[in-house]
Amino acid sequence: MEKQKTLEEIGEFGLIELLTKDFRTKETTIKGIGDDCAVLEYSEKEFQLVTTDLLLEGIHFDLVYSPLKHIGYKAVMANISDIIAMNGTPKQMTVSIAVSAKFSVNALEQLYSGIRLACEQYNIELIGGDTSASMTGLAISITMLGTVGKDKIAYRKGAKTTDLICVSGDLGAAYAGLQILQREKAVFNQGKGAQPKLDGYEYVLGRILKPDARQDIIKSLAKEQIIPTAMIDISDGLSSELFHLCLNSKVGCKIYEEKIPINQATGEVCKEFGLEPIIPALHGGDDYELLFTVPLSDYEKLKNIEDISIIGNIVEADQGLGMISRSGDYVHLKAQGWNNK
Amino acid sequence: MEKQKTLEEIGEFGLIELLTKDFRTKETTIKGIGDDCAVLEYSEKEFQLVTTDLLLEGIHFDLVYSPLKHIGYKAVMANISDIIAMNGTPKQMTVSIAVSAKFSVNALEQLYSGIRLACEQYNIELIGGDTSASMTGLAISITMLGTVGKDKIAYRKGAKTTDLICVSGDLGAAYAGLQILQREKAVFNQGKGAQPKLDGYEYVLGRILKPDARQDIIKSLAKEQIIPTAMIDISDGLSSELFHLCLNSKVGCKIYEEKIPINQATGEVCKEFGLEPIIPALHGGDDYELLFTVPLSDYEKLKNIEDISIIGNIVEADQGLGMISRSGDYVHLKAQGWNNK
Repeated sequence: MEKQKTLEEIGEFGLIELLTKDFRTKETTIKGIGDDCAVLEYSEKEFQLVTTDLLLEGIHFDLVYSPLKHIGYKAVMANISDIIAMNGTPKQMTVSIAVSAKFSVNALEQLYSGIRLACEQYNIELIGGDTSASMTGLAISITMLGTVGKDKIAYRKGAKTTDLICVSGDLGAAYAGLQILQREKAVFNQGKGAQPKLDGYEYVLGRILKPDARQDIIKSLAKEQIIPTAMIDISDGLSSELFHLCLNSKVGCKIYEEKIPINQATGEVCKEFGLEPIIPALHGGDDYELLFTVPLSDYEKLKNIEDISIIGNIVEADQGLGMISRSGDYVHLKAQGWNNK
Repeated sequence: MEKQKTLEEIGEFGLIELLTKDFRTKETTIKGIGDDCAVLEYSEKEFQLVTTDLLLEGIHFDLVYSPLKHIGYKAVMANISDIIAMNGTPKQMTVSIAVSAKFSVNALEQLYSGIRLACEQYNIELIGGDTSASMTGLAISITMLGTVGKDKIAYRKGAKTTDLICVSGDLGAAYAGLQILQREKAVFNQGKGAQPKLDGYEYVLGRILKPDARQDIIKSLAKEQIIPTAMIDISDGLSSELFHLCLNSKVGCKIYEEKIPINQATGEVCKEFGLEPIIPALHGGDDYELLFTVPLSDYEKLKNIEDISIIGNIVEADQGLGMISRSGDYVHLKAQGWNNK
């Protein structure tokens, strides 16, 4: 008899595949499980997008160093980022929370003030939710709905050989910020009245505590009439997202280490921790930047958009996923998932 | 300075009101927070319905006496019931789960087999979700989408004086089933090798472990061309749901104890526990039956539908919410919420 695999052995993506393989899909579902959002028939010119996240205290956030307002803001942002990664516009959302008795009404008002701030900035409506007790900590579940023009939707599939690979903003900063927070938490937990030293780390802390989804990038792309051939948001690290994009598009990729955008502040934190900055850029989570591909013919138009880096190009599938390092070596990229987070 | 209220003092509905009052709504949202579902503009003839639930181990279910397959089935059913309570048709859903390492892959397959069974029976599609680790127990979050004809939608508001008040099926059975499960759990926890005694309690146990949403009732209503003036599903007990319906409709109600449908099996369990059967019927949760109002003129048509009881009628708001007991006394009805569950 085959030995039952443990959750760790099967991994997040293996588990999703196993649990959902026997469910049927219908013709009104354009795309079910397996992209940033589900895609449903909606109107003559638009699809509806649906995405959802379940966040738990102790796993996805730590109340010791994350203010509740930031947790609320970031929870919304993660969902907005998924809608944007389909080239869509976020519209409505539901928020469910479960809280244990240790939370005060005031604490929940702070949480919701962050949720509201995100809604106001991105013009999203709170349409419903559920509130219940919890035996343990805080749980937040958000489902977001959005729309996208049928002629503008960007899936993970669709990247073609010779397409340019682009990323927005810079990578690895959220991971660097997390290192600072964890270090100061450890100092704080030792007691002795030590105060956390956070001065001078504003950039990386902002990136982990209050990230912004890159709606500005998809607006700029629209203005230049660029429709990405494939797109995904970078929530689990560049390497993992390249893996998803290439697997879905049935292509390979070649990126260049020297082209990967890393902020100076991220580099400085990495130096402090004795870490190569390319490691958090490739494998750090929570950046909420966009990874996308565009046809080579859009190269000139791309130049008009700020804050985008071309980091390489799509190659044939049999060439695999690789990075040319600063020293000129070819490095095979690896995907990382749940187990490594 | 005003003293901060605790979560217990403010209650579930007070908390929702407090947290969501500053959010703006837009014209595309027909109904936001405050009914069984949110209602969105969708097509010329239909609205889209959205509902969501967050369920936690230890609060909403107990793994000691609930098989995982039943937990999955019931989690879906609670959302289906909300769509049906708007007179709508459930269509798609997302399922997010968070699990601790104690769960095996096989356990999760059981959970999903229940989810799949519910999907197949009600023709619902699983379109997405999220899977993550949990520090504590199992958490399940479901969001369901559906549609309803604009001319058929039933809100909680809309009940008019003289309307007949109807309920489907029978009430209090799930509560009775829960008493049996809790008693046998206590026996089991004492050890001594005692086996749970569940024989003869099949009806009430089925009602708590594997409830079915009453899509058959709304199909029958449609067949008879009856559109409820107001409708809500009975998940928190008849009394609480009457309160919501009357408050939203700005009316009062008068119901008759002798008309409230209670199954004989429920009555027998209540006798065993020294409990008046009317108590779980009014205040027990998890029945997933429908409470709705219809114009007096639909009385003849109602008679063609099986498994519906007319329990009273809508009165002016200033007459309040009351029940005529079997002994002829007038009893004021009370709402119960989170704190009493």
